Amino acid sequence: MTYFGAIETGGTRCSCAIGDDKGNIIKKEVYPTLKPEITMPKIFKFFIHEHAKITLKAIGIACFGPLDLHKESPTYGSITTTPKTSWQHFNIVQAVKTAIRVPIAFDTDVNGAALGEQRWGAAEGIDTFIYITVGTGIGVGAMINNHLMHGLIHPEMGHILIPRHSSDNFESICPYHKNCLEGLASGPAIEKRWDIKEATNLANDHKAWDIEAYYLGVAIANWSLTLSPKKVIIGGGILNKKSLIDKIRKECQKILNGYLKHRVILDEIEDYIVLPKRMGESGLLGALALAEKAKEV
Amino acid sequence: MTYFGAIETGGTRCSCAIGDDKGNIIKKEVYPTLKPEITMPKIFKFFIHEHAKITLKAIGIACFGPLDLHKESPTYGSITTTPKTSWQHFNIVQAVKTAIRVPIAFDTDVNGAALGEQRWGAAEGIDTFIYITVGTGIGVGAMINNHLMHGLIHPEMGHILIPRHSSDNFESICPYHKNCLEGLASGPAIEKRWDIKEATNLANDHKAWDIEAYYLGVAIANWSLTLSPKKVIIGGGILNKKSLIDKIRKECQKILNGYLKHRVILDEIEDYIVLPKRMGESGLLGALALAEKAKEV
Repeated sequence: MTYFGAIETGGTRCSCAIGDDKGNIIKKEVYPTLKPEITMPKIFKFFIHEHAKITLKAIGIACFGPLDLHKESPTYGSITTTPKTSWQHFNIVQAVKTAIRVPIAFDTDVNGAALGEQRWGAAEGIDTFIYITVGTGIGVGAMINNHLMHGLIHPEMGHILIPRHSSDNFESICPYHKNCLEGLASGPAIEKRWDIKEATNLANDHKAWDIEAYYLGVAIANWSLTLSPKKVIIGGGILNKKSLIDKIRKECQKILNGYLKHRVILDEIEDYIVLPKRMGESGLLGALALAEKAKEV
Repeated sequence: MTYFGAIETGGTRCSCAIGDDKGNIIKKEVYPTLKPEITMPKIFKFFIHEHAKITLKAIGIACFGPLDLHKESPTYGSITTTPKTSWQHFNIVQAVKTAIRVPIAFDTDVNGAALGEQRWGAAEGIDTFIYITVGTGIGVGAMINNHLMHGLIHPEMGHILIPRHSSDNFESICPYHKNCLEGLASGPAIEKRWDIKEATNLANDHKAWDIEAYYLGVAIANWSLTLSPKKVIIGGGILNKKSLIDKIRKECQKILNGYLKHRVILDEIEDYIVLPKRMGESGLLGALALAEKAKEV
């Protein structure tokens, strides 16, 4: 059996784990995301301790962004302009590599989650699909022809501009854009719009969910028109509201209005827009799957 | 020298040509797009006549869509649900293959144009970029990691939904969507909004161009956020309005508002959003480049 390390860094928690090439997590720890000087040594200690018992072939890191993912860049492996100031320009790849001395693979949290769902989840055998997470922010990872999409920087799909719901006058919470998806439909946007602490506590029949389903329906329509994915996986904290996904499916169909003439969109939308099969662990499994692809660098 | 055939079918005209592997067009004919029973025999005649003199290794077809591009599909090679009723379900690949008996490569007109610009134009050496055409319709071809993007059907980016310009109450001309780009910003939309025969005849300082630049700026912002292209090529009849591209660049920067922190977007937008280098011939050159990749099928 071959063993790998996995690190998933999120806005509030960092998870690290040892797993095998079948996607089994053998050991896992979760630490709060504080300053890197506080959180990273805990992660190092976990791996150094485990590494003494189990030989790790590589470590995969699925990290909140924006990131420098260009291998030829002098700052490859660092978190760039994040609002979390203590993590700005922190080179996480270099730090982990120095501490543990195994090959490191590195990508965004959402690309990691997409890969995790392809390797051991809802996108097994599918070469072109997207993974959406709706929580504190909105992010999307895209697999296109079996390659995770990167490009000039990396996609930042949560910030696409969308037409407003006819009855929504809420001011966007995005400091950059008045009409972007994240500014109108992320967890904090819902919570501020309805003045509530926890969005998922809003009743199933609250108007909030019609507006939310409309915005996510528009976004999925736009991404379907732009990327032509074979499947759309949508997870994140807000999707814990069980009744939401079916509303999103209906809105998306209504918005596309029969234009994309494919069976799965017209008649089998419940197989097109789906929850993650590994809800809550897609990202960490993705980091494990990234590690499998790590090369000596 | 190796010679290839190229066919570009458009809404009003079909072009066919013989070219070499350096992108030189040796002979070219243009026919009006009438019914396939009328237009196709002219194309066959052109190739059969030329084929007697020059051996063609393959023919590439860059075709208006929507298309069936799935090689394993029984209707691979056909135009599917186009509003041009006489072309509906016409299998252009089968027809050309039967008449000329060489390997055929086949893709959308916009994917063809993207490939043409990569092979011999504004995207030489770039692995991830988009090619936009704004004319009778709005279409986009995307090259991602050196692969033309297809997916479930193929992208239909012209129909993404966008927020309206604050002073635009014009009803979309798209029969499917009230707020889609093509319905608000294609040539016929401009012409209907301002009740004019030829959009490009509107004066440089007409308000029409502020609205048009806003819509195309939003669309390019959304595609930049979604696909992270390294270059955005924009052509088509409407871009013959020389003053437009600079307005689009400014709108796009204004809309992104500094969120995508990359030098080419922040400071070198004139190298990021560019006209095609082979304006007016990208599609036919793309068909030639497609032919180079044709395999015996």
